[in-house]
Amino acid sequence: MKRLILVSVVLLLLLSALAGCARKKEQATPLPAGALPADAMAIAQERGLTPDDIAAALKTYMPSGKWDEYYLFSSGGHSGNLIVIGVPSMRILKNIAVFTPEAWQGYGYGDKATEEILDAGNVGDVKIRMGDSHHPALSETNGDYDGQWVFINDKANARVAVIDLRDFRTKQIVKDPNIISNHGSTFVTPNTEYVIQGTQYATPLGWDYAPLSEYKEKYRGVITLWKFDREKGRIVPEESFSIEVPPYWQDLCDAGKLASDGWAFCNSFNTELFTGGNMQGNPQFESGVSQRDMDYLHIFNWRKAAEVVAAGKYEVINGMRVIRLPTAAAEGILFFAPEPKSPHGVDVTPDGQYVVVSGKLDPHVTVYSMAKIEKAIADRNWTLDDYGVPVLNYDAVMHVQVELGLGPLHTQFDGQGYAYTSLFLDSAIARWKLGGDDPAAWTLVEKTPVHYNVGHIAAAEGDTVNPDGKYLVALNKWAVDRFLPVGPLLPQNLQLLDISGSPVKLIYDMPMGIGEPHYAQMIKADKLKPLNVYPQVGWDAIEWKPSPYATKKGEERIERNGNHVTIYSTSIRSHITPDRVELKKGDHVTWHITNVETAHDAVHGFQLGGQNISLSIEPGATVTFEFVASQDGTYAYYCTEFCSALHLEMMGYMLVEP
Amino acid sequence: MKRLILVSVVLLLLLSALAGCARKKEQATPLPAGALPADAMAIAQERGLTPDDIAAALKTYMPSGKWDEYYLFSSGGHSGNLIVIGVPSMRILKNIAVFTPEAWQGYGYGDKATEEILDAGNVGDVKIRMGDSHHPALSETNGDYDGQWVFINDKANARVAVIDLRDFRTKQIVKDPNIISNHGSTFVTPNTEYVIQGTQYATPLGWDYAPLSEYKEKYRGVITLWKFDREKGRIVPEESFSIEVPPYWQDLCDAGKLASDGWAFCNSFNTELFTGGNMQGNPQFESGVSQRDMDYLHIFNWRKAAEVVAAGKYEVINGMRVIRLPTAAAEGILFFAPEPKSPHGVDVTPDGQYVVVSGKLDPHVTVYSMAKIEKAIADRNWTLDDYGVPVLNYDAVMHVQVELGLGPLHTQFDGQGYAYTSLFLDSAIARWKLGGDDPAAWTLVEKTPVHYNVGHIAAAEGDTVNPDGKYLVALNKWAVDRFLPVGPLLPQNLQLLDISGSPVKLIYDMPMGIGEPHYAQMIKADKLKPLNVYPQVGWDAIEWKPSPYATKKGEERIERNGNHVTIYSTSIRSHITPDRVELKKGDHVTWHITNVETAHDAVHGFQLGGQNISLSIEPGATVTFEFVASQDGTYAYYCTEFCSALHLEMMGYMLVEP
Repeated sequence: MKRLILVSVVLLLLLSALAGCARKKEQATPLPAGALPADAMAIAQERGLTPDDIAAALKTYMPSGKWDEYYLFSSGGHSGNLIVIGVPSMRILKNIAVFTPEAWQGYGYGDKATEEILDAGNVGDVKIRMGDSHHPALSETNGDYDGQWVFINDKANARVAVIDLRDFRTKQIVKDPNIISNHGSTFVTPNTEYVIQGTQYATPLGWDYAPLSEYKEKYRGVITLWKFDREKGRIVPEESFSIEVPPYWQDLCDAGKLASDGWAFCNSFNTELFTGGNMQGNPQFESGVSQRDMDYLHIFNWRKAAEVVAAGKYEVINGMRVIRLPTAAAEGILFFAPEPKSPHGVDVTPDGQYVVVSGKLDPHVTVYSMAKIEKAIADRNWTLDDYGVPVLNYDAVMHVQVELGLGPLHTQFDGQGYAYTSLFLDSAIARWKLGGDDPAAWTLVEKTPVHYNVGHIAAAEGDTVNPDGKYLVALNKWAVDRFLPVGPLLPQNLQLLDISGSPVKLIYDMPMGIGEPHYAQMIKADKLKPLNVYPQVGWDAIEWKPSPYATKKGEERIERNGNHVTIYSTSIRSHITPDRVELKKGDHVTWHITNVETAHDAVHGFQLGGQNISLSIEPGATVTFEFVASQDGTYAYYCTEFCSALHLEMMGYMLVEP
Repeated sequence: MKRLILVSVVLLLLLSALAGCARKKEQATPLPAGALPADAMAIAQERGLTPDDIAAALKTYMPSGKWDEYYLFSSGGHSGNLIVIGVPSMRILKNIAVFTPEAWQGYGYGDKATEEILDAGNVGDVKIRMGDSHHPALSETNGDYDGQWVFINDKANARVAVIDLRDFRTKQIVKDPNIISNHGSTFVTPNTEYVIQGTQYATPLGWDYAPLSEYKEKYRGVITLWKFDREKGRIVPEESFSIEVPPYWQDLCDAGKLASDGWAFCNSFNTELFTGGNMQGNPQFESGVSQRDMDYLHIFNWRKAAEVVAAGKYEVINGMRVIRLPTAAAEGILFFAPEPKSPHGVDVTPDGQYVVVSGKLDPHVTVYSMAKIEKAIADRNWTLDDYGVPVLNYDAVMHVQVELGLGPLHTQFDGQGYAYTSLFLDSAIARWKLGGDDPAAWTLVEKTPVHYNVGHIAAAEGDTVNPDGKYLVALNKWAVDRFLPVGPLLPQNLQLLDISGSPVKLIYDMPMGIGEPHYAQMIKADKLKPLNVYPQVGWDAIEWKPSPYATKKGEERIERNGNHVTIYSTSIRSHITPDRVELKKGDHVTWHITNVETAHDAVHGFQLGGQNISLSIEPGATVTFEFVASQDGTYAYYCTEFCSALHLEMMGYMLVEP
């Protein structure tokens, strides 16, 4: 009987636990262990969710007001932008305008400071208002992301932009004066001394004209080390320099760290010096540049290069200091190592001891040892290429090859001693073990399918000296059937993988319908300290100081000097002062607007009908635009951010008298 | 003993059930009833997820490859775009470029057809390349969305765009020749006979110059009925017309349906005829235009207006046929009804019997009865305003007022007889009951807090004759603390509410960091039938017919006629033909590219360094761009969509000889 009582008590306890497991919970009470609410159960059954789906849903769900753990900074590809995404929710937090104007942010639509940023990137007489943003690089301190700046390149025009993470705005664009396309950029040295970019498609320096028959003699690449001044928050072109390299089509690059500090590495993929001609009976480019089994990993000593420049051993070409190729070879700045086959990604391990190269047409990754590279250099264990650059003995520097699968591209790392490599042709992510000294210990662990054709991958702090693990994003190039159809131009598919345990699990599909991302970097959210409002009312957000055109409430005015009219305006919920502007046809107008608000999120926009003007004026900011009142008439200007209940009333009339 | 055995058996069953409830499930097996997987449990506890959170997570989670139930078409505000979002996952599927160029889609970056679309929206000599997109309107058949087209307006320049849902591309922009800003647009008549837009800020017609002292006499609004030709897929300006209205600042509008078919309704909010002057000692606009307790609901008979135009009773002003104000009044086209207080949203109930008006400064919504409006018109129960327009007796047409809360703006409907109204100042959504004939039956049911300052709302098919219920999206204007900080310019916050049961539940927060959405419409996904590839290789996607410049593989060529060079190119994985283009400085170049692929997602992009050219060439499409080779040199062009493993090799050299 005692046993019966005991069993019954246990039974009752279990029954109540089971009831808790299934009962409907409407209130926001703490979750009883093991319980799945009834409405959750219903939707899980309706959608056919598996236990893995349910776990994935909860891992990626951020309830209202809860913040994500990481920021992902993803290039926008040929949108020319930089997209900020919260991880693990994979929600787009902001689309930062970089190379392409964007009207919501008031970037490149009249705002004088942003027009000047864009104009600094013009190519000769051509106003460039687009870009092909590729590889974001977060600023680093001691090889770790510090959350202060992010840089990104424009492949189409060989430019680099500086974005300030205090206000998530582009502050500078620099144009390389010697090349017309880049790719292996941006990447930073471990303390952000330099922001580095490398050429993609070789041209004569300055992209001067030279027939393709003179390719070998006249076409060149450069690797440019843009000096970054942290205090100014700007690249300083006059303190920057380039290293001339052969016209081998440099591809991706990475900076050394710790054991390889001072060095950097770039792949190349046209050591054939092929120049096309598919209508002249030549092979297609894709086969012409893929004939050789080996191309050359470029290994360069950027710290020594800086010393060589400081010693004056450079030429100034188109305004840029350039270490010429013979100098680079002679001074021990530039070395090559053979690398198989159609190389693409190059990634340095967190300890800096190894360099992982992926050849698109080789199922292995090839791992080079920094110690062996240094020994081969010390031993002068090399031959020379046609340009006189030392080519290190492959067997002397290659540490191990690891067979992963078809189409390996890019590698990232976690904190558990694993590497992750994207396999484009396999549409999979390979997890593999970094084995250290013993080549036999470098082994493939598992492969996780992704959808489809994965390019870059980004793990949490996955290319720093201290990777976090936990999350990895696969930037898949094709989506095909993954999302609702949206016509012939599809989004990309960014898939989030949980890499915290084994096996790796795919937990979220994010359509990227606002660009064609190439690379992304993921940083712990608490490293960033963005401002909510500018430091004081009347702030110049680009120069980062009080604006000389700041206007206080009550000091608004319109000043006329001949046909030059200067307007000092304020905006505040819910009016713009002045709300009447009277001009004469032909007037040159300079218009300053200060948002005198100090409340978080109290942004005012500004559009002026018929003038192609769109501004964003954040709390405290002063912005300026200029135009010529070339057409008479009656125009409306108004606040474009829905700032208050009487926001529609926040307008003014601009009258242009004939 | 039997009892003990029985109890033990039950105990074992329960134990195994409980074990199932908590055990870790790695495989994709069906979900046992009531079970929450262990890893899901762990994350739920780590994040402090409530049962409601878990249910919300599952309701909004789409496992890889599963499609959303609805498309949400959301305006992008002053980004000038239209954003397509999947519901309930709230993932951005595509950002459709409309009024603003967009480089990923190749819209307005050289592509001749899209440049022409944008140029059709220029204002005089000013090239307009931005817009303030506000109110998308899906095409309708019998008052229900048909999934064929979507229209949207640009408030800043008074324009309307036509977007084709076969390929999710903008096909046309029309500029109203008489006004410089609109707002109450776009909305469509129940069979999309017309796409309607109304003025926001009054100006003289044609935005001619006239001093503000002549506001009452010379300033006017119009309501323009753009005739839409479904066969052509175009607005036909010559079959369109406008109705002149007083300068009362017309605001939002809605078309009648069923019981109110043939009618349409627009609010207004400046019957004071206030014109600002805050630097001349006048009140601010927000108080000046909010002095009267009542403004005028504009009630117009668009079908009768079309008959009046057909009868020739119009004037042509700036090329547009306009029914002048006295004609509109005399012919029974235009009536007013008083409406309190600072009116904003106007929404017709699904049965068409009632018109719901929200006054921003009135805690009630005011409901008008179409039957009562028709009776008041028949009874000539009106007075005349200063412009001779009949103002219907308020008490005769007002059916009921329902007190909802502070700052009511917009109303949507479900299929259960409820209405939902956004409360800007309360930051809440009110659910209330449509009561029919008995005014006492119109009652507030519940209010759901949202975060923060909600503007428009969009329920599933929520402004059609057959609303679906289920989901409602609140387009909140301020996000403040809801997401990771991204500097002083914050995303908006689109919150998804589950309105299928009671109470209404907030289930997802979506940051909108790519614009400032105003309104959105939500359509059942299976109503859309977008194409995956164009109908045949060599397709002109804008004219929707074979392109005369289509080029077959093997027929690529470069034709020179003096200094005019025409290039017929193809793109296919992984080369562009020709891959060498040799020009002379000053050449005028016309370049056609046909993507000869027919595979789903086999898109090729195209950028040409130094020329500001960015194209997107979807499978089957032929696109054309033109430029002058004004600068000599060596340039690279390449495919910008990562189309294959050898995509980087898909390039060509353009040589411009001095």
